[in-house]
Amino acid sequence: MRGEAQRLRDIEPFRVMAILAQARALEAAGRDIIHMEVGEPDFPTPEPIVAAGLAALRAGQTRYTPALGLPELREAIARHYRDRHAAEVPAGRIAVTPGASGALLLAMAALFDPGDEILMADPGYPCNPNFARVFEARGVGVAVGPETDYQLTAGLVDQHWGPRTRGVLIANPGNPTGTVIPFDELRAIHARVRARGGWLIVDEIYHELIHDGEEPSASLLGEDVVVINSFSKYFLMSGWRLGWLLAPPALMAGIERLAQNLFLAAPTVAQHAALAAFLPETRVILEARRHELRERREYLLPALERLGFSLAAKPRGAFYAYAEISRFGEDAEAFCARLLHTAGVAITPGADFGRDARAKRHVRFAYTTSLQRIEDALQRLSSLLNG
Amino acid sequence: MRGEAQRLRDIEPFRVMAILAQARALEAAGRDIIHMEVGEPDFPTPEPIVAAGLAALRAGQTRYTPALGLPELREAIARHYRDRHAAEVPAGRIAVTPGASGALLLAMAALFDPGDEILMADPGYPCNPNFARVFEARGVGVAVGPETDYQLTAGLVDQHWGPRTRGVLIANPGNPTGTVIPFDELRAIHARVRARGGWLIVDEIYHELIHDGEEPSASLLGEDVVVINSFSKYFLMSGWRLGWLLAPPALMAGIERLAQNLFLAAPTVAQHAALAAFLPETRVILEARRHELRERREYLLPALERLGFSLAAKPRGAFYAYAEISRFGEDAEAFCARLLHTAGVAITPGADFGRDARAKRHVRFAYTTSLQRIEDALQRLSSLLNG
Repeated sequence: MRGEAQRLRDIEPFRVMAILAQARALEAAGRDIIHMEVGEPDFPTPEPIVAAGLAALRAGQTRYTPALGLPELREAIARHYRDRHAAEVPAGRIAVTPGASGALLLAMAALFDPGDEILMADPGYPCNPNFARVFEARGVGVAVGPETDYQLTAGLVDQHWGPRTRGVLIANPGNPTGTVIPFDELRAIHARVRARGGWLIVDEIYHELIHDGEEPSASLLGEDVVVINSFSKYFLMSGWRLGWLLAPPALMAGIERLAQNLFLAAPTVAQHAALAAFLPETRVILEARRHELRERREYLLPALERLGFSLAAKPRGAFYAYAEISRFGEDAEAFCARLLHTAGVAITPGADFGRDARAKRHVRFAYTTSLQRIEDALQRLSSLLNG
Repeated sequence: MRGEAQRLRDIEPFRVMAILAQARALEAAGRDIIHMEVGEPDFPTPEPIVAAGLAALRAGQTRYTPALGLPELREAIARHYRDRHAAEVPAGRIAVTPGASGALLLAMAALFDPGDEILMADPGYPCNPNFARVFEARGVGVAVGPETDYQLTAGLVDQHWGPRTRGVLIANPGNPTGTVIPFDELRAIHARVRARGGWLIVDEIYHELIHDGEEPSASLLGEDVVVINSFSKYFLMSGWRLGWLLAPPALMAGIERLAQNLFLAAPTVAQHAALAAFLPETRVILEARRHELRERREYLLPALERLGFSLAAKPRGAFYAYAEISRFGEDAEAFCARLLHTAGVAITPGADFGRDARAKRHVRFAYTTSLQRIEDALQRLSSLLNG
């Protein structure tokens, strides 16, 4: 009998989508819902970027670009690495992609054969194992917790490397935790992965959103490191669907062929708009937004702790807080449902991010709404928990 | 030792890209090149669509849409099926995708397991077997020629169906040939594929560009037919990266999960702009463009025949002519290289579209440049062949 592909059955739904659908139904019924579930900044795209998009449209920039992106955008990204990270990355190693999703798609397709295993932190970005799955490889979740700041370590890589392991995928900072790997640890992981003949992929989509200090980019470790990045988070261009992939020179011809086949090119107007993402006047706006995110965090974290949430690892970056809820004696999915229906606050249950048993005792707060709304959310939480 | 994935080595480069790169090098050296190699209309996006894009940007429509697309765009596409094809297609069966590429990606990922085989015409769109390959399935080219108007038939499907065959992919009209399957033949193919428990996928990205008469959409055959479509060709929105997939109701939940994971959503501004693609005033422009393409074809086809090219099947749609060059006693790749370097006309060798031996005796002309330039190209061809 005819059926869908097996992989379709293996890809789990995002629980956050069910939360979102319920939230929208409640809103349609007149309820006021505070959205802290969505991993998308609430800020509009900065005006200079929008202006560049408008200008490109008016100039008729509506046809395909080369598969790896506009040459001037690839150059601009290369300059960004030089200016921000003192990393020499030639434009020829950069592929402009439809979002970081497109970059992950290219990386997984280019690097891994069926049956290959890729180590990744559990909890982590829920799409990562699914990207492996669609190409018949396997994402192997390594349970991490506060003892390693919710990140992989060289020791964990050693311990979990098996006969089928071919790579390690790290998100730095991580989602849902916002924790950052110290550069020395990342270097040690890279050395281990290289020694074993595997690939190291580092997802740096939140890297410009590190709130405490700065961290070097994984691109500095060597040209064999594959780096994923995005214009969606720090650059506030989520709906434009634009990201990039940094890959070893020897892979670029193959990656170009894959890009030609799988998506032809990233959206043209978005690419022209993104040229303005690196302008000094845009940076002023982006840095102001980053400071705003940081203020939200400064308010949110202690407020959550006062309410009884446990924050085992303080997030250094991104816009998430991954909070332990054992004290409330409720499973995370039930807790999230009750919080939404009773208090009108939407957050994400931990099960979206991993299969480790601890996920059921965690929830993720995204501080992607205004400080005022976050304060309201904490009021509602307080009433729910103490009322 | 570490290497790239095997699939990367199996994906062949587009020969047209090498032609394009050489054409650009010649242009950089001051040569005037007539581009008839690119499968992208040369017309700008119609003004009402651009205006809708500009309005969306000004209104700050820069965040993610739902994974399957803006509900109002899905409804607009459903109305389009009703108005144009008298087909009742609920919006719930429509997934808005990043180009037809995104639709093919979803379809292949959703339907086929490793080792599954999909029958497809040889010659055909070069990406089709590669989409199968990335998911570890296999595109099986069925050599077709003038005897079946370069399309599959129910008889060919019967003849080539093997123990691993799980589907048939048809492009209607086809690329590189522009030929159209009669609806009765398509219905017969559908019945055969259904009886064998396989999937029928019909790529209709050139369907609105049928120049002689009209053909029903495959969506009328039944809700088990998977249909691919695009805003790139008839709607002149190539660089916006927008297409859609029409799939059976039972698959939509899985396709939504795949879309969430693989690309999150299609570009937001493009989706808002595409709402204007179905306006009456846009249709007037699009129909004028279609007539312009038809005029080019009316000039090009007899002119090619006068020069000694053989057009075994007259293209009814799209913007291609697939011409036999045996009379010139030269392999197609050599012929294309000579034509480019000597006469400054860029066309595509047949080997881009198939592995059948006949491909080496064919070239594809895309009439995606003005009538004036096509006339110039024919002058140059004439000098080259007769001079």
